[in-house]
Amino acid sequence: MNGSKRINSLRVSPIRKLMPYAKKCEENGIKVIKMNIGQPDIKTPKVFFDAMCDFDFEVLEYMDSRGIEELINAFIDYYKNFDIEFEYDDIIITQGASEAITFIFMAVCDLEDEILVPEPFYANYGNFADIVAVNLVPIATKAEENFSLPSIDVMQEKINQKTKAIMISNPCNPTGRVYTESELKTVVEIAEKNDLFIISDEVYKEFVYDDHRFISMASFKNIEQRIIILDSISKRFSCCGARVGTVATKNKMLIDNMMKLAQARLSVATLEQFGAAALQRVDPNYIKNTLDIYKNRRDIILEGLSKIDDVIYNTPEGAFYTIVKLPVDDAEKFVIWTLENIQIEGATLLITPANGFYSNDTDGIDEVRISYCIDDTDIKLGMEILKRALEEYPGRKA
Amino acid sequence: MNGSKRINSLRVSPIRKLMPYAKKCEENGIKVIKMNIGQPDIKTPKVFFDAMCDFDFEVLEYMDSRGIEELINAFIDYYKNFDIEFEYDDIIITQGASEAITFIFMAVCDLEDEILVPEPFYANYGNFADIVAVNLVPIATKAEENFSLPSIDVMQEKINQKTKAIMISNPCNPTGRVYTESELKTVVEIAEKNDLFIISDEVYKEFVYDDHRFISMASFKNIEQRIIILDSISKRFSCCGARVGTVATKNKMLIDNMMKLAQARLSVATLEQFGAAALQRVDPNYIKNTLDIYKNRRDIILEGLSKIDDVIYNTPEGAFYTIVKLPVDDAEKFVIWTLENIQIEGATLLITPANGFYSNDTDGIDEVRISYCIDDTDIKLGMEILKRALEEYPGRKA
Repeated sequence: MNGSKRINSLRVSPIRKLMPYAKKCEENGIKVIKMNIGQPDIKTPKVFFDAMCDFDFEVLEYMDSRGIEELINAFIDYYKNFDIEFEYDDIIITQGASEAITFIFMAVCDLEDEILVPEPFYANYGNFADIVAVNLVPIATKAEENFSLPSIDVMQEKINQKTKAIMISNPCNPTGRVYTESELKTVVEIAEKNDLFIISDEVYKEFVYDDHRFISMASFKNIEQRIIILDSISKRFSCCGARVGTVATKNKMLIDNMMKLAQARLSVATLEQFGAAALQRVDPNYIKNTLDIYKNRRDIILEGLSKIDDVIYNTPEGAFYTIVKLPVDDAEKFVIWTLENIQIEGATLLITPANGFYSNDTDGIDEVRISYCIDDTDIKLGMEILKRALEEYPGRKA
Repeated sequence: MNGSKRINSLRVSPIRKLMPYAKKCEENGIKVIKMNIGQPDIKTPKVFFDAMCDFDFEVLEYMDSRGIEELINAFIDYYKNFDIEFEYDDIIITQGASEAITFIFMAVCDLEDEILVPEPFYANYGNFADIVAVNLVPIATKAEENFSLPSIDVMQEKINQKTKAIMISNPCNPTGRVYTESELKTVVEIAEKNDLFIISDEVYKEFVYDDHRFISMASFKNIEQRIIILDSISKRFSCCGARVGTVATKNKMLIDNMMKLAQARLSVATLEQFGAAALQRVDPNYIKNTLDIYKNRRDIILEGLSKIDDVIYNTPEGAFYTIVKLPVDDAEKFVIWTLENIQIEGATLLITPANGFYSNDTDGIDEVRISYCIDDTDIKLGMEILKRALEEYPGRKA
């Protein structure tokens, strides 16, 4: 009586793996500065909670599998801010972007089909791909080159008969890159040349710093049949717990296929959908203020990194993550060693070994992902801890 | 640029398929008596909504992938009412029973593995199986035999090297059967003999009528490693829209595997979990009153059926469905014809052709599923419409 083998390939989240070490610190009264998580700390807009309390139906019923009309319309209106035009039938509300990813993979790929994805990539892309028996084919990008997409020729080498799509996260978790128009055009070119879908994860679209500009894949209107956008309210409105995301595409065949999946799971949680729909009424200053807060945090990280010797880092352009290459033998060992050995003002630091964002166990071994979903003071202290840890770590490379 | 082929096999829900016909009636001012749906009409306990409004965190965060502690403990306490003992680590909260089914299929089966299931069965079992590339192998049961499970020898013939589990719905959607201890023992016997898991869908456990007694598969404690229970608050507390279900098993390997799937999708909607946890405080009379209401409705249906010639029906023992064999050429045609041709007091009737609950397109062709999630007056009228429709339907069999 054995369980299935297919789940064995799923990797434990690079974030969760270290939780026992962090827990032990906390049990010993040591504060853990958590620069590992993607859980925003900004207050969720009150209108979300108010809308849920205003719900006045007597029976909490299944909603339409596509999502409630108010919420679909809210997304349509929201996208207009980005000059993106989606219609009602182009959108399906999903249980977070997580479900959207599964729906897209299933709708695009048969068993063992392939999707290209720039690496490092969000660890759960890999898990969802394993779950639905799709192969992610990494396109290497490097810290030394600010994780720029390679030339079309390099990408072309990865394509074969089983390649069905190319997927990007823009702004990128985990690298903090915001892709340029020129890079996006390369993606379009490779898709057109090889008849691929383009899957664009745009959940961090509101978090773009300095002069960088977010360009939605949906703005390439002449290839709209190839474009699939996945999105979520989790990050921009600090409401990860709502589990409300969306998939949007002008491709009717894909939407029809994904609707079958949506119908099988019946519907998304009702009340959280009403809360999410109300977010359309949030004062635009909420997003502006949020962006200012994250930008300031990013600047603190940059200042901290500038004081540390021998690290390779870039200026994060978007999202609230950055990948940093450290002068260490093994980032996972380093992170654990730091938790166990370094404290400043009674606090230690938890960051994420970046290996989990690579498909190969031996890649990204000296890199970490640093996130900034905590307050300025803690970030400043976190960077001091990182500096000291790198100075004292026995596995430091020359 | 084609989408995947694997979604093509998904069948449109037997309920949704007829919605356009019902909609047309409503547009023409005709009331449609909906004896097709599994959406309870009883009021959701107020405590659910109150708990959500009482939520006083400032950030709507991801919760633990396993589910919130309050809710897991609420399920543990609830199961004690049935003399079932689950511990914290035996339970995972899921996005409705829907997600629980997917988790279980994935954890038990590799690609193309098989699960036995008495037929007719809940249509979405088939869809979820298709989604995760598992084959459901039907065990035929018949209206003429009150959908009793066949002998162990008949089941044994369906088993091969790829068979991993046997799955039952008890009380059964769509048949209304509550399996006897003797039938459950047959399931246990076949599982032990062939080293199978037993997947028991017990979401209707509170709906059991007359002298019938619900026996949870979890009460077979000497084979607890084989048993997987799936459950949901949707039906018993009239809150399908909460999307809160659970999977419970004493098998640690399975739980560990399913936790990986839970972690990939991060967490279940936060606020709905708090609402669901509060349901543990609902006055026990709520369930008792609900049961009385459904039992009364069932009796009205039985009285109605007793007045109709040439139908084969059983006394529903549980849940709020029954399968009825009609003297018609094709139940789907009959249902559509009824919508288009029969009205009493300005109302017509929508019931579900049962073919969708069979894996083979040609089975159950003269059967319908009747549900009773509407009020007594409408049920009474619905049965009159059914009687008249059967009298006048041109495709009636002699």
